[in-house]
Amino acid sequence: MLTKEENRYMTETSPGTPMGDFMRRFWHPVLLSEELPEPDCPPKRTKILSEELIAFRDTNGNVGLIDNYCPHRRASLFFGRNEEAGLRCVYHGWKFNVNGDCVDMPSEPAESNFKDKVRIKAYPCREGAGMVWAYMGPPELQPDMPKLEYLDMPEDQYVSTKVMYESNYVQVIEGEIDTVHASILHSNLDSLSKSDTATTIGGRYSYRDRPARFFVEDTDSGILIGARRNAEEDSYYWRISRFLYPYITMIPREPRGSARSGLIVPIDDENCWFFWVRWNPFRPLEEEEVRTYELMKASLAPVTYLGQANKRNDYMIDREMQRNVNYTGIPQNNARAQDAAMTDSMGVIVDRSQEHLGTTDMAIIRMRRRLVQGARELEEGIEPYAATHPEVFAVRSGGAVLPRDVYFTEDPSVQADIFVQ
Amino acid sequence: MLTKEENRYMTETSPGTPMGDFMRRFWHPVLLSEELPEPDCPPKRTKILSEELIAFRDTNGNVGLIDNYCPHRRASLFFGRNEEAGLRCVYHGWKFNVNGDCVDMPSEPAESNFKDKVRIKAYPCREGAGMVWAYMGPPELQPDMPKLEYLDMPEDQYVSTKVMYESNYVQVIEGEIDTVHASILHSNLDSLSKSDTATTIGGRYSYRDRPARFFVEDTDSGILIGARRNAEEDSYYWRISRFLYPYITMIPREPRGSARSGLIVPIDDENCWFFWVRWNPFRPLEEEEVRTYELMKASLAPVTYLGQANKRNDYMIDREMQRNVNYTGIPQNNARAQDAAMTDSMGVIVDRSQEHLGTTDMAIIRMRRRLVQGARELEEGIEPYAATHPEVFAVRSGGAVLPRDVYFTEDPSVQADIFVQ
Amino acid sequence: MLTKEENRYMTETSPGTPMGDFMRRFWHPVLLSEELPEPDCPPKRTKILSEELIAFRDTNGNVGLIDNYCPHRRASLFFGRNEEAGLRCVYHGWKFNVNGDCVDMPSEPAESNFKDKVRIKAYPCREGAGMVWAYMGPPELQPDMPKLEYLDMPEDQYVSTKVMYESNYVQVIEGEIDTVHASILHSNLDSLSKSDTATTIGGRYSYRDRPARFFVEDTDSGILIGARRNAEEDSYYWRISRFLYPYITMIPREPRGSARSGLIVPIDDENCWFFWVRWNPFRPLEEEEVRTYELMKASLAPVTYLGQANKRNDYMIDREMQRNVNYTGIPQNNARAQDAAMTDSMGVIVDRSQEHLGTTDMAIIRMRRRLVQGARELEEGIEPYAATHPEVFAVRSGGAVLPRDVYFTEDPSVQADIFVQ
Repeated sequence: MLTKEENRYMTETSPGTPMGDFMRRFWHPVLLSEELPEPDCPPKRTKILSEELIAFRDTNGNVGLIDNYCPHRRASLFFGRNEEAGLRCVYHGWKFNVNGDCVDMPSEPAESNFKDKVRIKAYPCREGAGMVWAYMGPPELQPDMPKLEYLDMPEDQYVSTKVMYESNYVQVIEGEIDTVHASILHSNLDSLSKSDTATTIGGRYSYRDRPARFFVEDTDSGILIGARRNAEEDSYYWRISRFLYPYITMIPREPRGSARSGLIVPIDDENCWFFWVRWNPFRPLEEEEVRTYELMKASLAPVTYLGQANKRNDYMIDREMQRNVNYTGIPQNNARAQDAAMTDSMGVIVDRSQEHLGTTDMAIIRMRRRLVQGARELEEGIEPYAATHPEVFAVRSGGAVLPRDVYFTEDPSVQADIFVQ
Repeated sequence: MLTKEENRYMTETSPGTPMGDFMRRFWHPVLLSEELPEPDCPPKRTKILSEELIAFRDTNGNVGLIDNYCPHRRASLFFGRNEEAGLRCVYHGWKFNVNGDCVDMPSEPAESNFKDKVRIKAYPCREGAGMVWAYMGPPELQPDMPKLEYLDMPEDQYVSTKVMYESNYVQVIEGEIDTVHASILHSNLDSLSKSDTATTIGGRYSYRDRPARFFVEDTDSGILIGARRNAEEDSYYWRISRFLYPYITMIPREPRGSARSGLIVPIDDENCWFFWVRWNPFRPLEEEEVRTYELMKASLAPVTYLGQANKRNDYMIDREMQRNVNYTGIPQNNARAQDAAMTDSMGVIVDRSQEHLGTTDMAIIRMRRRLVQGARELEEGIEPYAATHPEVFAVRSGGAVLPRDVYFTEDPSVQADIFVQ
Repeated sequence: MLTKEENRYMTETSPGTPMGDFMRRFWHPVLLSEELPEPDCPPKRTKILSEELIAFRDTNGNVGLIDNYCPHRRASLFFGRNEEAGLRCVYHGWKFNVNGDCVDMPSEPAESNFKDKVRIKAYPCREGAGMVWAYMGPPELQPDMPKLEYLDMPEDQYVSTKVMYESNYVQVIEGEIDTVHASILHSNLDSLSKSDTATTIGGRYSYRDRPARFFVEDTDSGILIGARRNAEEDSYYWRISRFLYPYITMIPREPRGSARSGLIVPIDDENCWFFWVRWNPFRPLEEEEVRTYELMKASLAPVTYLGQANKRNDYMIDREMQRNVNYTGIPQNNARAQDAAMTDSMGVIVDRSQEHLGTTDMAIIRMRRRLVQGARELEEGIEPYAATHPEVFAVRSGGAVLPRDVYFTEDPSVQADIFVQ
């Protein structure tokens, strides 16, 4: 439970808010590289942390991320012409490069040096794992990119995309690190009876012992979550997930399996992007894994990346399916829609003064505390450690069956598994 | 005329407002029984007095009306699974019965007693006259259901449905007790010339003497309205209607004719439900009466119960019809749309500081006064008499032609007619 | 650059605002005569200066402009019946003539004199140049109509229409008096290379010397703008435009050519009407000119007069066209859409605290100053001179090539050209 004031502190990220300032110390995925498919292609609107921005790929292939509004008279640069290494406002012809310099100003006399005095807000950009990343904080504090494993991986070992969620970012993070919901929300009605024949470890044990016991550790990058369930008589099954500053999740996986990471970037206080990465550090993704990913992409509307099943159509809930097949009545191959139905329906910013958290919400409570802690420390002048130490992001999630007397972080194989080698 | 402050006092009914508190002392129709057609059917969203609620019919056929939001993490119970005598939130599986008890909590350890500490807001429900009724006030003050005649009537003697109005509830009540508008809004252009050949008493006299003279009496249940018009040389025609707390109307009828009652329940401050009942205490409804009702139902959009002719399409006004046939240009068989065009177009909450009331608005003035009086008395600690005395609702409206020297309430036949025997 | 407070002062025109009071000293075009095609035709909704109004043409052909809301109980008179020299509210039959008198009140007793005590807000109307004009200020200050040349012109010498813009009126005025944008926003990519073969003077010189030098003069009616460009070695090309109180523009034209005037009337603070007049004081319009006008009308949606290319569809921008043909990617025959893409995309009320004005924005700066000056003087009790001196509107815009040592206002031929003879 949070007071309304605490909730506002945690959920608001526009310029000038404490959490917005904290966020701006980190690099953010802001759109997909595929949205700017080639040099001089059409510019794209995007909104990140409540800032209206225009992304474009210039003639040299470099990506720019600049203010939506031309500094002259504030016409939108969405209508700009992307030409010869710059984006030209078509109102009076002012042209800007990816650095925000004004490189042409045909509306003013040649002898005027007004051009050299004008700049447009521009954020440095990088590309990695199919995403365009930007740094939106104070230039003098710009850190290196985080050492996320998937940012440096062969193309056949990862896939990525994004989905729009129609709620504040925090409730989407909460859903990601909440392993307990899987055995209801994402499960068939007969999941309990089938758990003995499950082909994965997670499938076998998660349904038999739904209310996992949570053990949460603070890390330099955020938190490490061990969700423990009874496995066999002498063993526990541990699902190990992570929350990394400021909004990255890594969810449990089978040993040597492919991992999944969510990067839940605020669009504004009432919407967020869910950037989604599946990667395997050991081998190329399998055909089945790629097909699942393609299916997910096909469930999104073009351009907007909003699920075709969304709140306007009640996520296409099928009450007969809900009666006979699964808990939600939303198809099992559309887990995104199942999640979104929950997190969107809480209201755009959930009223956390009304919630009732149980023992299985411990990871959520700790994630909130760490997030708020980061913003509060910055208010006191303490720069976030994770932002300036990119190596703390070189981690993974995992899963393991361990003897009952071994704590998950103390096991050497787990240790080997949850850090990038 | 009301000041803006008085108007706000009268029109606002969300939790914590004086009028909202007053309303909550009464039973409210909240949806139609047909919207929950069978045990374990899909739950329905509804909003009453600005509260977002979920209605469901459980396995035993009982109706529950509970908070839209699961008390755990606030996912909407609209997506809940209606199963085995309860509605289960599909996020983590918490399940609630119609009383609001949490009867299952699979996300928490079995030994936890958290389940017993959690309840969801739930309002007691009853069914009557095709409607689901709920009591949303303090449990210790829950009264019996009002003794409205149509709540205890054989099925062939009544019909009921509901229509959504896109305005505050008070202006819809005002339209209902305003008999004078009928002879313009609902009439053909040639109504005056045809009034002599009318087959009903109301038709004969209402058009010849449009500006009725109003006589209004306070009653325990609200007000009793006598609208007097000249009939023959030595007689008056009286139309007798009622306003019953907190928003029920009964409109005039022919002697022994079928009556009509409106129950105008606030959805929120800017929308309301018009629950509509036609009943005949003496005989089954006639085929023609049922056909009129079916026609009205057919004019509504499915699921939303909003008129297909609504403010988005200017109530399908036909200017040629308005020129040649009737005053409105909206078909005569769609009196609901004619009314809605008027009350919706005043703005969602009409600015009563700008109105100019005449002598024929006397019933409206008195209704407002009584409504506000009820709320003010409750603020002073006086519980509403009508809420706790269900028998005061055992009344009817009526109509009569009386000698000119008899006041309508003093006539024995009228007396016999306007109270349930 | 304006502070937020200055910006608000200039852009807000609802009743009671300083700029709203200033505006109300002038006559306003409020709709097109074609929208009320014949006596007793359907009434039309309109909104001017944030006032919701109903326009109707009565049986005698006179136009009335009255409050949207019936003074009785505030039903909308849009649903009124236009009959026998008045508009009748169909709720209770109150009927009003074009002067706002209540001429019938069937809902009240005949002996009541309530009818004579009730009036509806009604503004005096005139027709001219295909537009209905209204005066919405204090009756005792009502001036004569402005002596705009096109208000008194044979029918074959002018055309007029209107377009809805989805922004505050001031940014549309700014676009109209901003001659510099034409050579980018409205031009083909090859316009510089083709400027030598242009058939008009404007075409020849405006593209060769884009950054015009501005000379602005205050006039009794507003401002006179001379935009000077290099022509031949010993000559300058002057484009002469005007801003007339409170929102009228006249844009440059070729000598003896047809002129264009914009009347940019606030609908509310976030939308405006662009009334558009093309006229030629010397001869009938040519077939080509009329065709251009018909094309423009065909680009608008019926009833709403909103461009079919609008912000919902990004003005139908075609990125291939933008790459190969013109700067905007919006067809060259739809300059309105090109303009609207700019002025709408600034936001409904542009944040002028963020702009960076150059030397070519001098006319814009002066226009704002004069507009604000008018409102400020009125606050000090000084009635606007232009409103009460209709003859100051008997002016034109123009264009001329003059020797380099002649200032544009001093040339006799220019003098003769820019005033109505």
